[in-house]
Amino acid sequence: MNKIRILGVDTSLRSSGVAVIEVSGHQMRALAFGRIRNKATLPHTGCLAAIHREIDKLITEFEPDEAVIEGAFFSKNAGTAMILGQARGVVLAACALRSLPVYEYSPRSIKQATVGAGAASKEQVAKMVMRLLSLNEQPQDDAADALAAAICHAHQRGLPEALRSMPI
Amino acid sequence: MNKIRILGVDTSLRSSGVAVIEVSGHQMRALAFGRIRNKATLPHTGCLAAIHREIDKLITEFEPDEAVIEGAFFSKNAGTAMILGQARGVVLAACALRSLPVYEYSPRSIKQATVGAGAASKEQVAKMVMRLLSLNEQPQDDAADALAAAICHAHQRGLPEALRSMPI
Repeated sequence: MNKIRILGVDTSLRSSGVAVIEVSGHQMRALAFGRIRNKATLPHTGCLAAIHREIDKLITEFEPDEAVIEGAFFSKNAGTAMILGQARGVVLAACALRSLPVYEYSPRSIKQATVGAGAASKEQVAKMVMRLLSLNEQPQDDAADALAAAICHAHQRGLPEALRSMPI
Repeated sequence: MNKIRILGVDTSLRSSGVAVIEVSGHQMRALAFGRIRNKATLPHTGCLAAIHREIDKLITEFEPDEAVIEGAFFSKNAGTAMILGQARGVVLAACALRSLPVYEYSPRSIKQATVGAGAASKEQVAKMVMRLLSLNEQPQDDAADALAAAICHAHQRGLPEALRSMPI
């Protein structure tokens, strides 16, 4: 059975969730998960550089085959969208520079794929992720979202080819 | 007289203007200018990786001391802001990863600093940039905007310290 490694990212400027899972058939295990935290005092440019550096390090260390990001929540506020867009752009470029195909799923699809309900709470997602990956502790919310994105993609990969999503 | 090199960027996903100028006292000259063009068929992730790669190459080749970007035009459309934000984030991270301080000026300030009128047309900016830098040919619009951003920053650097803008 081929093993595949998936990098999941729940992007934000100050606290991006990151996770790497390994999938082998119906078996999934978490290799790493956590957060890229940027202090409130760090200027935007410094945050963006840190995000690039950390994503690049994760790719070097775990050699994932594919990456997944949680789809952008489209704020009505253009300023918020711009800031989130900057962080997203850095994650996408960091993956693309290492030739990782990136997939994107909406927050709703990710919740659906993990909890079975598109409107699940963060707490429910974290609890279900913990169960699905047999973790000893409940992951912090952002890390849980990154793990959930990776799990969602693992499910998608199991679908017949015509039904699978395409890299963005 | 100390020489300083300024990298100017007018960011967009498909055609970012880029320029490097060298400033020595009141003398300015263009070392390079052009565009990072991404084909309409290239996926977003590929465009973002190309922007990162090209900015990084310019920094390696010309060793600028400071970078300037044209301030984000805040679209009312959050989707447009997100896409522009992605490209901006990549430029900011590429500069910050190479320890370049990045300054930002509004399109209005840039036009004011080059043409002397905040509402100047693209054509007027290109013509004035050509004159200020003694170029033989009128630069293409995006490149002219990048040169104008660099010129605007050169002017700012000539102000008393208390009046200068801060890196972002």
